[in-house]
Amino acid sequence: MGTKYDANRDQILRISAELFAKSGYHGTGISDLGAAVGLGRGALYHYIGSKEAILYEISSRQLAQMNELADELAVTEPDPEKRLRGLARALMRNIAEHRAEWTVFFREYHALTGERRDRVITARERYEAHWRHALDQAVRDNHFHPLPPLMVKGLLGMFNYSYLWVTADGSRTPEQIADDFLDTIIMGMRAGKPDAR
Amino acid sequence: MGTKYDANRDQILRISAELFAKSGYHGTGISDLGAAVGLGRGALYHYIGSKEAILYEISSRQLAQMNELADELAVTEPDPEKRLRGLARALMRNIAEHRAEWTVFFREYHALTGERRDRVITARERYEAHWRHALDQAVRDNHFHPLPPLMVKGLLGMFNYSYLWVTADGSRTPEQIADDFLDTIIMGMRAGKPDAR
Repeated sequence: MGTKYDANRDQILRISAELFAKSGYHGTGISDLGAAVGLGRGALYHYIGSKEAILYEISSRQLAQMNELADELAVTEPDPEKRLRGLARALMRNIAEHRAEWTVFFREYHALTGERRDRVITARERYEAHWRHALDQAVRDNHFHPLPPLMVKGLLGMFNYSYLWVTADGSRTPEQIADDFLDTIIMGMRAGKPDAR
Repeated sequence: MGTKYDANRDQILRISAELFAKSGYHGTGISDLGAAVGLGRGALYHYIGSKEAILYEISSRQLAQMNELADELAVTEPDPEKRLRGLARALMRNIAEHRAEWTVFFREYHALTGERRDRVITARERYEAHWRHALDQAVRDNHFHPLPPLMVKGLLGMFNYSYLWVTADGSRTPEQIADDFLDTIIMGMRAGKPDAR
């Protein structure tokens, strides 16, 4: 970041994400991308390489940020409910601010091939594991009643699906929406524990 | 249903859904479809018409079934929690049995144009309204505490996102998974109501 090259590259990725979200990855040609960012094929190549490389960058970037934050929370926040809240707020905020990128991620990551595809799948599993560890710890620490193993998928679904509707400038902030969802589900996960805090 | 024509048409739609789910709508040519179902372009046209008509059929069919069931529940099941359970179980079962179709719906419906696109969006809104009405009624009837307006989106996200992972032959049935999710979230929505049932 900070250099002209990086700024141009970010700009190309942002515009590409919007195009892919609008017309689909396969529906967007490299010449459409070039026209949208005002660069020829050669200059575009200088910044990113191939169309698949652009898809990879778009699909992995936000997830990488979410994993970084999750790694940090894993060492700084011992309370599992607070860790869930940190994960949830950051995810909803990130999706609200990068809807085009998340739309492309959810709809198009499967178009990636080989190592790029493997890396995105691994990053996604790593992110899910952060949520699962927080849930498991909350059960072990007696915050929550024992949960069905797939609960982490349901919980992530509540948040991930927001790429279809969440906005950063609605009457409730992304963080408030995350709290709304989490407050309800945490109450449900605590219920039945007489010693629930 | 019941006729040879309908059986062939269903078969074409099933195979097309699998191809679109695997390679994307834009990544699948009409000749790929023809080869997969063993029909030439003319015969394919006889059954469905255009590639977009196939996408429309795939994207609208399961949702139409879910709306039919929801319409029925709306008149036969006055208890809002039981209605939610009926909606949730049927949706999870349908997604488990038609993952390719739901994958295509979630990833590709935006490739539809004009009236076809409008119809799918309307069907989706109608389906969401069924869930929202059940939640609203449960609040009015004092089953649930007042819920944030976006809760219906979070709840649907828990279920919709399952197109990525649910199977009909896992160790828990789709209905059990639906109950797992619903039990937890209903407990959360009831919490704080001293008169919760």
